[in-house]
Amino acid sequence: MQIKSVRNKVPIPVNAIVFDDFETLDIMGPVELFGLLQTYYQVQFYSLNGGLISNKHGVTIQTQAFEAMEINSQSILVVPGGIVTFELIKNQAFLDELKTLASQSGSVLSICTGSSLLAATGILDGIKATSNKMAFELVKKLNDKVLWQARARWVVDGKFYTSSGVSAGMDMTLAFIHETQGEKVAQLCVEEAEYIWNNDPNVDPFSKLTTTEIVG
Amino acid sequence: MQIKSVRNKVPIPVNAIVFDDFETLDIMGPVELFGLLQTYYQVQFYSLNGGLISNKHGVTIQTQAFEAMEINSQSILVVPGGIVTFELIKNQAFLDELKTLASQSGSVLSICTGSSLLAATGILDGIKATSNKMAFELVKKLNDKVLWQARARWVVDGKFYTSSGVSAGMDMTLAFIHETQGEKVAQLCVEEAEYIWNNDPNVDPFSKLTTTEIVG
Repeated sequence: MQIKSVRNKVPIPVNAIVFDDFETLDIMGPVELFGLLQTYYQVQFYSLNGGLISNKHGVTIQTQAFEAMEINSQSILVVPGGIVTFELIKNQAFLDELKTLASQSGSVLSICTGSSLLAATGILDGIKATSNKMAFELVKKLNDKVLWQARARWVVDGKFYTSSGVSAGMDMTLAFIHETQGEKVAQLCVEEAEYIWNNDPNVDPFSKLTTTEIVG
Repeated sequence: MQIKSVRNKVPIPVNAIVFDDFETLDIMGPVELFGLLQTYYQVQFYSLNGGLISNKHGVTIQTQAFEAMEINSQSILVVPGGIVTFELIKNQAFLDELKTLASQSGSVLSICTGSSLLAATGILDGIKATSNKMAFELVKKLNDKVLWQARARWVVDGKFYTSSGVSAGMDMTLAFIHETQGEKVAQLCVEEAEYIWNNDPNVDPFSKLTTTEIVG
């Protein structure tokens, strides 16, 4: 479905990044919500070197290389997570590129352990952030300069929006759309997606899952 | 993330079908939830002729052809929607193939206007079903032999599970997992996905949107 609009401005780039074994819904949830608003946003997928990127859910998607990304003061970088992020934080070339993209983007949205990637670049030092709740203690240990928030569906600090695990990314994305495009647009998006929106970042039923051990 | 399990049975095929301009979350929501249970399910993507399939959300995914699909008495067919379904119902070759796949699959799950595709094949005649709520009146008109349910987050009738729009597919998929794998597995899935599950099919906040006009 697609929301009608008479808005004629150039759509804001939504730059969805992926890597092998990305968590499907982390990125596809926000992509659906931005995608419903095609006169406001244009989604494109990117990976470090471009090409086909696969995950364990059977999803293989086509991407452009990071270097082709359109970045401006309005552009939105979306960073998913997945268990693979605990490997990816060892890939300095990836982290260096990510830091550059994040520093130049107008807004940065991370979902689940996507915040661990941002944290590993140092760009979240002194910034309030959250992450997947089962993996929370492990993520915290990666960088204690980040002001980690244990109980939050999502956290906003300046241009950084970080969400809890997987589905929380949709609640956060709607909050971002609400804050930047207003209530009417957010409500249209909710109705088109028939999404039961938890619009309160303090409602985090999964914070009780925070543990020192990761599953999977 | 990935749920630990000691289950050693052969995973059940989850056959996710797509077509150009499929609605992203319709298929990716269920794929995430099944994908979290990799020892129970194996997701693969299919399209009529295979190859790369794209939509307006910037998603381009790789698929196999319908003829390569593994179908058995356990296999699960997942059918997404999107505004394009109102065009696709005119493609008899697609409908013929879909009818064969749906009739041979163990379970059939449709999301959003995916039910209009199934309805157009005739396979839902005499079956209770639901669909996207903004498009509901239009979908109803396609086949009045289907027992359309105007107020339902999702509907189960025999092997057919049909959901309301987009996000409703995740609530329905969790209900399917709950019914077929039990409460513990469904609850693990909820926690891994940090998904705030509406587990009551009668809670349908969007049924009020049902109108005789489609947007978009």
